[in-house]
Amino acid sequence: MKKDIGVGLLGLGVVGCGVAEVLATKADSLAEQAGLPLVLKKVLVRDVNKRRSVGISPNLLTTHSEEILAHPDVDIVIELIGGEHPAREYIEQAISNGRHVVTANKEVIAKHGYELLSLSRKYNTDLRYEASVGSGIPLISSFQQDLAANKISSIRAILNGTTNYILSRMSQEGLDFASTLKQAQKLGYAEADPTNDIEGIDASYKLVILSNLAFRAKFVPQDVYCEGIANIAARDFLYAREFGYAIKLLAIAKRDDDKVEMRVHPAFIPRDSQLAEVNDVYNAVEVETDLAGKLVFYGEGAGALRASSAVIGDVLAIARNIYRGANNVPDLKLDRRATVKPMSELKTRYYLRLNAPDRPGVLAQISKVLGDNSISISSVIQKESDPAAQTAIIVIMTYPAEEEGMQKALKQLRQLTVVNEVSNFIRVET
Amino acid sequence: MKKDIGVGLLGLGVVGCGVAEVLATKADSLAEQAGLPLVLKKVLVRDVNKRRSVGISPNLLTTHSEEILAHPDVDIVIELIGGEHPAREYIEQAISNGRHVVTANKEVIAKHGYELLSLSRKYNTDLRYEASVGSGIPLISSFQQDLAANKISSIRAILNGTTNYILSRMSQEGLDFASTLKQAQKLGYAEADPTNDIEGIDASYKLVILSNLAFRAKFVPQDVYCEGIANIAARDFLYAREFGYAIKLLAIAKRDDDKVEMRVHPAFIPRDSQLAEVNDVYNAVEVETDLAGKLVFYGEGAGALRASSAVIGDVLAIARNIYRGANNVPDLKLDRRATVKPMSELKTRYYLRLNAPDRPGVLAQISKVLGDNSISISSVIQKESDPAAQTAIIVIMTYPAEEEGMQKALKQLRQLTVVNEVSNFIRVET
Repeated sequence: MKKDIGVGLLGLGVVGCGVAEVLATKADSLAEQAGLPLVLKKVLVRDVNKRRSVGISPNLLTTHSEEILAHPDVDIVIELIGGEHPAREYIEQAISNGRHVVTANKEVIAKHGYELLSLSRKYNTDLRYEASVGSGIPLISSFQQDLAANKISSIRAILNGTTNYILSRMSQEGLDFASTLKQAQKLGYAEADPTNDIEGIDASYKLVILSNLAFRAKFVPQDVYCEGIANIAARDFLYAREFGYAIKLLAIAKRDDDKVEMRVHPAFIPRDSQLAEVNDVYNAVEVETDLAGKLVFYGEGAGALRASSAVIGDVLAIARNIYRGANNVPDLKLDRRATVKPMSELKTRYYLRLNAPDRPGVLAQISKVLGDNSISISSVIQKESDPAAQTAIIVIMTYPAEEEGMQKALKQLRQLTVVNEVSNFIRVET
Repeated sequence: MKKDIGVGLLGLGVVGCGVAEVLATKADSLAEQAGLPLVLKKVLVRDVNKRRSVGISPNLLTTHSEEILAHPDVDIVIELIGGEHPAREYIEQAISNGRHVVTANKEVIAKHGYELLSLSRKYNTDLRYEASVGSGIPLISSFQQDLAANKISSIRAILNGTTNYILSRMSQEGLDFASTLKQAQKLGYAEADPTNDIEGIDASYKLVILSNLAFRAKFVPQDVYCEGIANIAARDFLYAREFGYAIKLLAIAKRDDDKVEMRVHPAFIPRDSQLAEVNDVYNAVEVETDLAGKLVFYGEGAGALRASSAVIGDVLAIARNIYRGANNVPDLKLDRRATVKPMSELKTRYYLRLNAPDRPGVLAQISKVLGDNSISISSVIQKESDPAAQTAIIVIMTYPAEEEGMQKALKQLRQLTVVNEVSNFIRVET
């Protein structure tokens, strides 16, 4: 008879410290729920002497991964190192050693989830990753289990807290991108190297993970068209507001027969829509289904405690199974027919901001280029002429048009002598 | 080796027909996910000759419950009769016969959930009830599993689609309660006998079910203070708007040390809060937790397809366990320390609407009664004097005060000769 459930922790960063602390402070209540105490057996760190925010016995720390991955008393390995390597290899090794794995690693799951889940099936172990998307918001299990009877037609989501914080501040305070990013870094809402967040890569990993479950197909990060927020200017928010929109970095996956659109980019979204009202570090996922209708999941998508909620929820689920001798190997039911719809086939409305010489005939030439590419203009605002430079800002909203034509038009607009600059180009979600 | 998973259906009303139809039309995809086909073996109806919206073989229909409850090929009994009796007895019998049970019955689960789950443990069967709260919104499993590591401090929810539809219409169209109810009945959003919905009883059942999971304690419907919406007048929405509030029927459970407030009543709620923006038949559940922070679950809380999503999600979960030989008996971890906080100890702000003679000194006497009961007034609006009747409407918002004092004050106000009527009294949630 087992006396406890042994837990091994890989990584003692922000989330790792959070998890270690919750395991310690909630030990009694967790033991009650799991049936057996959850005992931290060993923690992998890079430097055993580093000072940490969590009080943890130095005897538990190790710099040798195999002391955890092959530890005889470790039943569950929690991977919180992040990044692709060596996290992926550690997870593989843990599974191959018959250990159950809980991870918060969106990159590894988005890139190698299918292979890792197959490995888990082979070794009769469980692999859980609730914390990889939306932190403490119950998404993975809802998609896997509760929505199992549904055909999901679309996911539209705000999945990255950093960019949503930056866009919220820019919108509310009229600040530019660079200074808002700096402020976010100072407050700990953006990392020193913010590339993955700012360029939408983080959101695209999360979209892949949700899409694999929603469409029961195998998608990879390369399937996602990905555009970041660095090009958004303070004045784009002004024009957006004038047209009745907010600007959000949206992660969108939409099924259209057997094709699925997969894209992450800044988007205009009606100001009175639910996603428009998701601010700061909050995340939200809107799902359209055939049976359950429209569902929205909302909560904070980042932070050590938020992630701990999901990580320890997963650990408890595995621990309960161990306690009652049940075996939960991952399901891998894929509907392989789904393929990615090329971005060129996207049909939507577009917002265009151009800088042009302030003289007659300019708009005629711009309109002609758009018209030649079957793009109809819905509204035009000409703004803020600069008499000194003799330039004007022209803002255009189009009717729904095909991305392919739009991209051709953009190319041609950039070559027009009456266009100084195509300053921005943002898709509209309605 | 089993060839299929046998399903027995109790009840072929609106939801029953929905479930039968989904089982038929999605047979292939459900079989793929379950590992084995889900086969409807028998359906309990009151009248085998009644015409129904779903095409179902007459051979499957029976009026004898034991043909399902003791059917050798039925693995899972789906109870969709609703109401306390004989649903409760059928569920008990099914469990005692070793069958797994899926139910959408909030009344039975709210009143007898603990006993039925204990019985399930005894007979090593599973009992699931995801559809009993919020239809297709994944609430039960999220509370049971994903939030297991959290200490939940409060639930604030809109759990009844009928009343939310009526209040939305009243607010948007300025109509009175009686005519809006009639309209809702015509459209199928309210039942012929709407008592359970209108008086908050339905919402109180759902609050009990969520609270049992959230606080790991055993609550019963009598624990919930319950007040309906029939007393809300069109003008209450006008005053609410003036003060910056919406009016919603809220279901609230808040933990305060070891006591839990449990109440369902109409409430003023700030217009810019998320719950204020939940309209029509939508439901939403806002949960405050220590680890995951604030979460909101949103979706449609009624309708045959919505409920089918949850019912068949539960059936699939059980079917998968059967297929892989795993056994999932319900967990019953109760934190018995939690007790119900008496309503008299509630502290909140109050909205009061009074009808009084339009003459000097009235407000002084009203204020004195409130002051004598330690209730401070935050704003007063005197409105719509009726010169013919010489009456005025006095609207008062108080600062936070204790319910006990408030109830005393109400009694005294009703006895004042300068008060014709205490027309309404609504609690404020901030």
